Amino acid sequence: MAIPTTINAAGREVPLEVNGKPVIPFKGVGKHKPFGNKYGPPIPSCSDFPDDGNKVVPTLEEALLRCGIRDGMTISTHHHLRDGDLISNRIFELASVMGVKDLVWFPSASFPCNDPVIRYLEDGTINRIEGSMNGPLGRFVSEGKMKGTAVLRSHGGRVQAIQDGDVKIDIAVLAAPSADAFGNARGTGGKSACGVLGYAKADSMYADKVIVVTDNLVDLPCFPAEIEGNYVDYVVVVDRIGIPEKIVSGTTQITKSPDRLLIAELTASFLEKSGILKDGVTMQAGAGGTSLAIAVFVHGILKSKGWKSKFGFGGSTKYMVEMLEQGQMGYILDAQAFDLDAVLSVSRNPNHIPYPVFNAYNYHSKGNLTTMMDIMILGATEVDLNFNGNVVTHSDGYLLHGIGGWQNCLHARNVILPLPLFRDRIPVIVDEVTTLCGPGELIDVIITERGIAINPRRTDLIESVRNSGLPLRTIKELKDEAERICGRPAKPVFDDKIVAAIKWVDGTVIDVVRKLKQ
Amino acid sequence: MAIPTTINAAGREVPLEVNGKPVIPFKGVGKHKPFGNKYGPPIPSCSDFPDDGNKVVPTLEEALLRCGIRDGMTISTHHHLRDGDLISNRIFELASVMGVKDLVWFPSASFPCNDPVIRYLEDGTINRIEGSMNGPLGRFVSEGKMKGTAVLRSHGGRVQAIQDGDVKIDIAVLAAPSADAFGNARGTGGKSACGVLGYAKADSMYADKVIVVTDNLVDLPCFPAEIEGNYVDYVVVVDRIGIPEKIVSGTTQITKSPDRLLIAELTASFLEKSGILKDGVTMQAGAGGTSLAIAVFVHGILKSKGWKSKFGFGGSTKYMVEMLEQGQMGYILDAQAFDLDAVLSVSRNPNHIPYPVFNAYNYHSKGNLTTMMDIMILGATEVDLNFNGNVVTHSDGYLLHGIGGWQNCLHARNVILPLPLFRDRIPVIVDEVTTLCGPGELIDVIITERGIAINPRRTDLIESVRNSGLPLRTIKELKDEAERICGRPAKPVFDDKIVAAIKWVDGTVIDVVRKLKQ
Repeated sequence: MAIPTTINAAGREVPLEVNGKPVIPFKGVGKHKPFGNKYGPPIPSCSDFPDDGNKVVPTLEEALLRCGIRDGMTISTHHHLRDGDLISNRIFELASVMGVKDLVWFPSASFPCNDPVIRYLEDGTINRIEGSMNGPLGRFVSEGKMKGTAVLRSHGGRVQAIQDGDVKIDIAVLAAPSADAFGNARGTGGKSACGVLGYAKADSMYADKVIVVTDNLVDLPCFPAEIEGNYVDYVVVVDRIGIPEKIVSGTTQITKSPDRLLIAELTASFLEKSGILKDGVTMQAGAGGTSLAIAVFVHGILKSKGWKSKFGFGGSTKYMVEMLEQGQMGYILDAQAFDLDAVLSVSRNPNHIPYPVFNAYNYHSKGNLTTMMDIMILGATEVDLNFNGNVVTHSDGYLLHGIGGWQNCLHARNVILPLPLFRDRIPVIVDEVTTLCGPGELIDVIITERGIAINPRRTDLIESVRNSGLPLRTIKELKDEAERICGRPAKPVFDDKIVAAIKWVDGTVIDVVRKLKQ
Repeated sequence: MAIPTTINAAGREVPLEVNGKPVIPFKGVGKHKPFGNKYGPPIPSCSDFPDDGNKVVPTLEEALLRCGIRDGMTISTHHHLRDGDLISNRIFELASVMGVKDLVWFPSASFPCNDPVIRYLEDGTINRIEGSMNGPLGRFVSEGKMKGTAVLRSHGGRVQAIQDGDVKIDIAVLAAPSADAFGNARGTGGKSACGVLGYAKADSMYADKVIVVTDNLVDLPCFPAEIEGNYVDYVVVVDRIGIPEKIVSGTTQITKSPDRLLIAELTASFLEKSGILKDGVTMQAGAGGTSLAIAVFVHGILKSKGWKSKFGFGGSTKYMVEMLEQGQMGYILDAQAFDLDAVLSVSRNPNHIPYPVFNAYNYHSKGNLTTMMDIMILGATEVDLNFNGNVVTHSDGYLLHGIGGWQNCLHARNVILPLPLFRDRIPVIVDEVTTLCGPGELIDVIITERGIAINPRRTDLIESVRNSGLPLRTIKELKDEAERICGRPAKPVFDDKIVAAIKWVDGTVIDVVRKLKQ
């Protein structure tokens, strides 16, 4: 039986239910008002926990059994160990051996190291992934091979879903670089330090059962505790939770591509000439090569003007740490540390403050950090003539990326997308994005190596750079130029089957990804 | 119509409903298993909060109006400003002027400075207080003058009640020595520093509406934030939230009474000779004069033996700070700072860690700090022959104190009550406590100036000091001696009317206080 669909406020056809549960179609930015109350997990009692506070059990298997793992449960993990994660796959390996079926994996993100879970999607251990799917996992989904429908949420949308009870986590398995026997845990210390553990905060607070897995058991109190032991049921000590060199890069790398450097320079120039970059500015950029180059250029401008950024929100890198240490940034508020310099800085600099996405990105909260950010540097796989953005699929229709914090960050004051005009001879600017992840009304500026397009809604920004000498273009001009060079790419052909739902920050469905026609 | 009553597991007659809501009679220590789920407050949306994160409104009155203050609401406050609190009374003064009636005041504790709220109990603004009632407020209740029935909970029981939805806070008004415009707040900094704000954690997380009131508005981020801005609706800036010299004592004072010093010395001697005091010990003592003297004696023993306490749980004082700074204590985990030395220490010593009662005392949690404490030094107004303890009423039947953390602390490994044999010629050891606050099975040792009584259940402790030369007595012997000196005190005579319900740590009713016959 076909699932009923409707056309949402963004003009996209979306289903009225996903995985058998009703969903709300996207109603427009800021239009959906939540109702009801936050989820409350079951009330525990101290009488069921050891008096000496020692919650250590011998193995992850035993912890899962004690948590009552069974068919259909939702298991959550965080991605702070990134491509060095040795725990997530192990959960499903154990579950598969136990014969548990139809689990939902609810990671805060997945990485190439998680590709082996395809095995457990195939053998029925996992019904579906609700989270980011990159590379082979994304292809698996796009080809219609996953039993359930994927649900993609932003980092903040994930917190919203947990808090509001849209997703009820049965067991959270939280790897921790340092933990005590009571379950207090943090991201610093030990051989698998990842800096911060903020993605795990909502999981620890709202999951029915919480397992902390560490390779560095320390004496109580493991402080400052990003995961509070009061929420933890079991602690498992293993040899290694991760592969250090894959948890953090030694150093994040600035782009060496001349085109990308040009984009970075143009971006810095735009920030300066438009007046967005100013003393006291708040800003956020990613850890990609172009973003890093922009950070370096911005650092130079701040220095030369004697300005100081009030704070930066991380994903932190060496380049943000340099701004902090050299006095051009007041604080780093940090949801994840990308490189070794950042990890070290978190543990030694009191102005480098763990700041969970729970507090920065959750739209169903009494305010967010993102709306306070002056400058937000983001990427995209595609942008269209209406400035709509796509970050999950490529123009060939394959689901290849997660949303990350992208949707949340769109709420900043000035959202700037430095993008190459084309990648592998595929234009980035299209008539209409393959998958709508962010409405164009929230995207302000597209900066390419061949010109800058400002969203016509931002007349203030257009005015600010009118006589600046910057290469201003319309987005249509940029698109036409790319197509003159590369030609117009073929559109992917989709089957009817919905393989993934894309949630907006408020939990509504903004778009779907359909199965690719083989 | 009379409220139905029953005899609970402690043999006390308790009602089956309080203030029109059903309650569960005490079932025995660790016997009541909670059911159901934690409370979830209404889901907010960022779209209802200012993009710039500025939640400042001009006055407390406006904040209360915006929170929709109305008849019958529950208003919570914390007591970190202790006897210097300038905010709590102001709330009810404003409510009275607005004509709001039948409010429930739900403070984490009250102080003499709060006596003026009697006016608002009398004029109908406040229906009842659910919290500690000292001095005149307690007399007001004992004389049957409060409209509703008081409910007394331990600090941990208060967290339990909030978390489990037994008490739904409509508006939390949280005074903060430092706060930013987004509502992030902490207990350090400014002119009204109180050190930590841990009592307010549950209120901020679970109240429907949260108002932060500060006299020290700082730039975002106000970190480390003990109250997270994400839970805050409004911020109010006032001239003064408190009277500094009444918020913290300059220095807490060691007893000068020879009898109390003798008790302290005996206690330290008992701790040493019984072997409870050892390298790595965990301990907690209060800020009373005898407790402070015990802390000084214990410090001396640790020093002379070259031992170190793993951590102490505060209420912190100068004497704990000295142990920390001189190397005889690893950490202070701190729920409240009692004196200036403690306040300073929290802001400068990374091993002096704010540790909310939320994490230390809540019995409906996945474990508590209290069961990990080796030594717990507590007081009592009365102890009876079965080692039952009373902390809320005096032998004359008047309700004169709150429970504080006392019930929670009874869960420690060794609970020791250093007590004078009599106060103002009223014996402290009685046949049966006037009000049962803590079952005797949890109270291990009574230490008086005329001898030490060990609970017969603790055969291990009795064995440990058998040949120590310590003045061991039975509790009956101590009682008889006191009565030989002071005579047997008259029993108070009570009316039938229940004026206060005493909750156990799990939310069940362990006893009641009745109106005194006039």
